[in-house]
Amino acid sequence: MIKIGIIGIGRIGKIHLENLCTRISGVKVLAAMNPSEAGRAYATQFNVPLVTANADEVLHHPEIDAVLICTSTNMHAEYIIKAAKAGKAIFCEKPIDLSLEKVKETLRVVKDCNVPLMLAFNQRVDPNFNEIKSSIEAGKLGTLRSIHIISRDPAPPPVSYIKLSGGLFLDMTIHDFDMANYLVNDEVEEVYAKGFNLIDPAIGEAGDIDSGYVLLTYKSKVTVIIENSRQAAYGYDQRIEVFGSKGMMKAENPLKTTNQFLDGNGVHLSRNLDFFIDRYETSYLLEMKAFIEALQQQKPMPITGDDGLKAMLLALAANKSMQENRVVKMSELM
Amino acid sequence: MIKIGIIGIGRIGKIHLENLCTRISGVKVLAAMNPSEAGRAYATQFNVPLVTANADEVLHHPEIDAVLICTSTNMHAEYIIKAAKAGKAIFCEKPIDLSLEKVKETLRVVKDCNVPLMLAFNQRVDPNFNEIKSSIEAGKLGTLRSIHIISRDPAPPPVSYIKLSGGLFLDMTIHDFDMANYLVNDEVEEVYAKGFNLIDPAIGEAGDIDSGYVLLTYKSKVTVIIENSRQAAYGYDQRIEVFGSKGMMKAENPLKTTNQFLDGNGVHLSRNLDFFIDRYETSYLLEMKAFIEALQQQKPMPITGDDGLKAMLLALAANKSMQENRVVKMSELM
Amino acid sequence: MIKIGIIGIGRIGKIHLENLCTRISGVKVLAAMNPSEAGRAYATQFNVPLVTANADEVLHHPEIDAVLICTSTNMHAEYIIKAAKAGKAIFCEKPIDLSLEKVKETLRVVKDCNVPLMLAFNQRVDPNFNEIKSSIEAGKLGTLRSIHIISRDPAPPPVSYIKLSGGLFLDMTIHDFDMANYLVNDEVEEVYAKGFNLIDPAIGEAGDIDSGYVLLTYKSKVTVIIENSRQAAYGYDQRIEVFGSKGMMKAENPLKTTNQFLDGNGVHLSRNLDFFIDRYETSYLLEMKAFIEALQQQKPMPITGDDGLKAMLLALAANKSMQENRVVKMSELM
Amino acid sequence: MIKIGIIGIGRIGKIHLENLCTRISGVKVLAAMNPSEAGRAYATQFNVPLVTANADEVLHHPEIDAVLICTSTNMHAEYIIKAAKAGKAIFCEKPIDLSLEKVKETLRVVKDCNVPLMLAFNQRVDPNFNEIKSSIEAGKLGTLRSIHIISRDPAPPPVSYIKLSGGLFLDMTIHDFDMANYLVNDEVEEVYAKGFNLIDPAIGEAGDIDSGYVLLTYKSKVTVIIENSRQAAYGYDQRIEVFGSKGMMKAENPLKTTNQFLDGNGVHLSRNLDFFIDRYETSYLLEMKAFIEALQQQKPMPITGDDGLKAMLLALAANKSMQENRVVKMSELM
Repeated sequence: MIKIGIIGIGRIGKIHLENLCTRISGVKVLAAMNPSEAGRAYATQFNVPLVTANADEVLHHPEIDAVLICTSTNMHAEYIIKAAKAGKAIFCEKPIDLSLEKVKETLRVVKDCNVPLMLAFNQRVDPNFNEIKSSIEAGKLGTLRSIHIISRDPAPPPVSYIKLSGGLFLDMTIHDFDMANYLVNDEVEEVYAKGFNLIDPAIGEAGDIDSGYVLLTYKSKVTVIIENSRQAAYGYDQRIEVFGSKGMMKAENPLKTTNQFLDGNGVHLSRNLDFFIDRYETSYLLEMKAFIEALQQQKPMPITGDDGLKAMLLALAANKSMQENRVVKMSELM
Repeated sequence: MIKIGIIGIGRIGKIHLENLCTRISGVKVLAAMNPSEAGRAYATQFNVPLVTANADEVLHHPEIDAVLICTSTNMHAEYIIKAAKAGKAIFCEKPIDLSLEKVKETLRVVKDCNVPLMLAFNQRVDPNFNEIKSSIEAGKLGTLRSIHIISRDPAPPPVSYIKLSGGLFLDMTIHDFDMANYLVNDEVEEVYAKGFNLIDPAIGEAGDIDSGYVLLTYKSKVTVIIENSRQAAYGYDQRIEVFGSKGMMKAENPLKTTNQFLDGNGVHLSRNLDFFIDRYETSYLLEMKAFIEALQQQKPMPITGDDGLKAMLLALAANKSMQENRVVKMSELM
Repeated sequence: MIKIGIIGIGRIGKIHLENLCTRISGVKVLAAMNPSEAGRAYATQFNVPLVTANADEVLHHPEIDAVLICTSTNMHAEYIIKAAKAGKAIFCEKPIDLSLEKVKETLRVVKDCNVPLMLAFNQRVDPNFNEIKSSIEAGKLGTLRSIHIISRDPAPPPVSYIKLSGGLFLDMTIHDFDMANYLVNDEVEEVYAKGFNLIDPAIGEAGDIDSGYVLLTYKSKVTVIIENSRQAAYGYDQRIEVFGSKGMMKAENPLKTTNQFLDGNGVHLSRNLDFFIDRYETSYLLEMKAFIEALQQQKPMPITGDDGLKAMLLALAANKSMQENRVVKMSELM
Repeated sequence: MIKIGIIGIGRIGKIHLENLCTRISGVKVLAAMNPSEAGRAYATQFNVPLVTANADEVLHHPEIDAVLICTSTNMHAEYIIKAAKAGKAIFCEKPIDLSLEKVKETLRVVKDCNVPLMLAFNQRVDPNFNEIKSSIEAGKLGTLRSIHIISRDPAPPPVSYIKLSGGLFLDMTIHDFDMANYLVNDEVEEVYAKGFNLIDPAIGEAGDIDSGYVLLTYKSKVTVIIENSRQAAYGYDQRIEVFGSKGMMKAENPLKTTNQFLDGNGVHLSRNLDFFIDRYETSYLLEMKAFIEALQQQKPMPITGDDGLKAMLLALAANKSMQENRVVKMSELM
């Protein structure tokens, strides 16, 4: 029985808490921390024995094996370091931090403390994307040539969020950078990125872009093209298309229903799922199962802090490329 | 807070128990009965206060408002009658019984006791089928002309099950009969049915068919065609297509993933979901929510015992039509 | 070089003429007859040497090997008989005649004269439907169990046409009866048919139905269900679905374009092709190629007068079943 | 009646000849030139009055209004210039020439002679792509943000062809550059291109790439991403996806048939159409109709020599970008 403490019971913390309490066996949530009452009330509902506003009570709880860190980004590094020093296994929402130095330092502590750390790139375990990964590994696609990743949100977040987000490439594209690394399984050689403020002038005034395009060239000459937008009129759009020497595989958007309506104007299908909570519902469960299973079977974590670092470096290279309007070699960032 | 007792913690009882304990608010499961240990252990996991092998403890539990009857069919009528007499609201898996007389008698008792009874035709709340129903009601399809319902199982059940099932029309087509009634919202005038034993000779030896075709003519001249098979090599197939004067609407099968693989042979999509547990996962939750909501708001039950009786009469007419190889008027069965 | 005469240069005669003149090699159109000027002018455009209003000039043209009969139905039998007696190979649009006796007599003459006769059930060579036929023959679907054929016109023909058409089953369903026979490759044992006047009261006043449903039971226990409508708000609908022990195959409607438009309401695809001229454009070419090839290689005709007779008998049985509201054995019509 | 002369009766010349002779009214082909016998025999079949091996006989034919130039690229400029000086309207296959200087000179002569010139970017009139263009113009997509164009051939051409082709960007991407210009309707500001030799080493040895990626930034901040490959295991792939503020529109690949086969492995659809002859069959007819219609109605040509020059400049910029591994401003090429 793995014993868990959760720090942060916001939108994503709630999902993990419910999944752990109702859909994953061999695990027990012993403690839950949230600064505000709403999150704590949610934990109480699931009969969590210790519900507190004090993170340290969770981090130093003697019976707890593993800590989930689901707070806002600015607290991630601090809690990871504390948890690592307390000898807890760690599951942390991405990113570790917006500062490269802090990320590196945090990972150093984790390494020194020799505790397992899993970073929550949940899209890796999405069944549709995972079918692509396993098809690549099975050789079904032959030698990879190019990958096209599209990620578009239904609507931009508040500008207040944007200001603290680190910018589009670090906040949003980061998932796609990780997916690219995961699928290609190689090192990026160079990065070219363009970005524009097309949607909301307030985003531009906050110094960010809302539309980004990145072309990654891997050492193996695989090209990954990423298209991001903070707003799509037709809803949340998350697609991947992989082209290899033996064939091509896509992951299309799941639609809300399977209905087709035919009238004089044509065939009308349903909308895409609304947003990540719906679209990635299964992947949140699967990533938590993967974390627990790795702990139970003492296997290496499927997604590591190093994966987070690599994705972050790509985001930083994309920022540099966009700002200087030139191709950036990854060797420049080392 | 609605207080619930569950009788029968088999495959479907477990689903309802988990849904009630983890996904529906304003409700509490106070008692659960199962004859065997396995079902009881499942209930214990969810901290159900009273877990027992004795149905009467649940049926007469003083604090319980509503009883879920999820046992095998042969116990349904008995437990409904007991629950009705104990003044409990009742949610019962279909069918009430395989004997028309017993069904009528059971419904009489329910009526006399004036308790709410919901029959679990879960497909009515399936989001894809429900989109059809609401489109009909909104007038989007115009005047209905014909409906085509396909229901095919991935593989036939054991012959031992078939022998006690009441036959294909009562066991399997019953869902489609109810769906037809639900969508057309009218009385059937006549029934024509054909059935064959094409799949497994043992089913024929047990006196049943495995492939059935039914054509229902409603008083409003809407025609419903139903195709059933106990086995489909390509998996579970549950589709509806409704043709009206203004357009046509289909509900297609959900596939396991959204992937498309293209090679020299063409485009390859994923398989249909395996079977009803996966295919109707959402509908099991939604029907339970509907039951609880009807209780909380003291609304009429969305699916009644009378709906079950009507579907049963269609199954009996289909049997008669098949045996006598002729069109059967519903008035013959009254 | 096969030399051809065409009788009737209406909508379908024009298609055959153009195909013969521009897309089929080893063939030459020597003569063309049409009662009205418009058809004759069309033939002149293609440099047909003899363009006339007198059918006999075509039927008795000494150099002509084969005659295409593309007039209105009431002249088919007469011209077939004349052509047969003149020793010409014959390609005739369906049906041969609306009178069973006349069809039988015509086929007797054709047999006596020992000339080849191909009946224009063009849907047999439609590439989508043909893929189904060849998959059945290749054993890809295993043992056939059931077939579902949907044929819906975008809009009903004028009532003047309906009055001379022989009724829905003889005029429209005839294609589906032939397709059923073609795919199942067996004899029908019994027929059950229902029909209603749901669309235009004038059709009912003319003694016809506009919505028809037929269930055919073949001797091999294959069931074919046919749904016909004279009007579909969403356009021309021509689909087949075949269910066998090893899998299921559909032929879906081709759409006008491959576009997908996504907005806040969902995914919008194009409309079905407008009507048979567009939908079966390829099949008109392919059937003519098949006719010419059979002549060139002295092979049996791919679709015979007997095929037309069999489909006609099914239509007559359907009429009888509908009128008497009972199952009709095909043996009753022999 | 527009009178036409055709120079070059190869693969594409035959298509135009047949379309002009059988599917377009108000036009007559008076003369056809081909150096080899095979092409001339084809023209004779269509009763072209003058069939010759001497281009000058066509170019100076006194009755001819318009000349189609369908020879190999190296003769295009010479014949355009001669035709222009002879006062003929000109339809020419792309490209005009591989030398920028020669293209400019040729266009100067055309301008001086004041004759209409249409360049055969046939994809512009493909019904699927055209639906995108007209939707953009109708405002259905709102403000354009990005476009993704995929063009992949089923198999690479012979290396002998590659050597004379001008390279991937000039030979293959040229269509996509023109499509991008056509859809965005703006000037490109900068170009970034990458290319690799991934498929056949012989292509690399010939100094060319077989896999190309281009990112175009338009002055209006619309981004166009182009992916090209000389080989796709799954067949000819020609797709466009346009993302705007109000919605997204795709043009998907047409498949060979509409069949769906379902077995235990999933749903299997047909293959893409084989290659451009099939895929663009309709567009070859439509572009010729557009040329003839422009002549008949004395309208400006829908696709001009200037369009060809603009696409060519993008190809040259892409080559420069790839060679120097940097962003190239279009102003550098002026």
